[in-house]
Amino acid sequence: MITRAKVKAAQARAARMLDHVHIILTPQEKVNLEVADFGLDELEHTGLELVVYINSERYCAKELVLFPRQTCPEHRHPPVAGGDGKSETFRCRWGRVWLYLPGEATPRPHGKPPSGSETYYTVFHEVALLPGEQFTIPPDTLHWFQAGEEGAIVSEFSSPSRDESDVFTDPRIRRIPEVVEK
Amino acid sequence: MITRAKVKAAQARAARMLDHVHIILTPQEKVNLEVADFGLDELEHTGLELVVYINSERYCAKELVLFPRQTCPEHRHPPVAGGDGKSETFRCRWGRVWLYLPGEATPRPHGKPPSGSETYYTVFHEVALLPGEQFTIPPDTLHWFQAGEEGAIVSEFSSPSRDESDVFTDPRIRRIPEVVEK
Repeated sequence: MITRAKVKAAQARAARMLDHVHIILTPQEKVNLEVADFGLDELEHTGLELVVYINSERYCAKELVLFPRQTCPEHRHPPVAGGDGKSETFRCRWGRVWLYLPGEATPRPHGKPPSGSETYYTVFHEVALLPGEQFTIPPDTLHWFQAGEEGAIVSEFSSPSRDESDVFTDPRIRRIPEVVEK
Repeated sequence: MITRAKVKAAQARAARMLDHVHIILTPQEKVNLEVADFGLDELEHTGLELVVYINSERYCAKELVLFPRQTCPEHRHPPVAGGDGKSETFRCRWGRVWLYLPGEATPRPHGKPPSGSETYYTVFHEVALLPGEQFTIPPDTLHWFQAGEEGAIVSEFSSPSRDESDVFTDPRIRRIPEVVEK
């Protein structure tokens, strides 16, 4: 659970970061900017801020904002309703982001799992993305990612998003935010 | 047909416009930047510059660059191989763009068809897009668009692109570029 006040502060911070890199949002998009704390209430370490531009039955596009060293926790997008799981292309726009995937563990990785959650991180093949670089994650493939010291802005192009179907390695995680008013 | 020299000049100009709005390309993307003159050899009036980030079997994302007053000519994306035609979401990032669709003709439209090609423009319902604004075009729907006085940069999110299937109103148009070396 996350408080309304924390959500509003994170929305404003993410909107400032987007503004800084000249990505323009409508007033409504700023109000609707999604703050995902994944139910862990440690947003600075584990979390993600999102602007969903379009999520139709055919395709999806979002802007992802990561605060400095913020981590989107390990998960995969399984097949849904007989179709393939979500495939997504991450394109780094600003800052830097380290993406972790199955495969040979990278020696001396740049990122590390948030303290206290190490058990729930199991893939350690690192792909570094600098501005202008991109990587496509196949369906149903475990992945997690972490921003560098300045944070990161990443465009995501994908097949349709069905967040409620995502499978997280950490059983404590709730993908759909639970916001308390206090 | 368009000469190699004109293609190179247009690539450099489009890359400068993207750079100006802080959209970062890899060196390879700059080299591959697509210049579509639609076979009319009047690129300043009728043309489009594109960076294709991803065009998979499931989704597509591009950056579109329009020079000042440049027009992407009227076309539609018909059903292909039993599937629906391409649906696309245009999000204006910089400048302004006027999109024309079927429906009631807008009185005093901002854009106008390129001189000499008026016959091949048949839809005149105007949708104006300023930075941060977007519009989704349904499959198989005639549309054309024109940039304002400064040009425009537009992100396109869509179902897969199959440019060779596009149907243009103007029978002179060749979507796939024919470049001559001289």
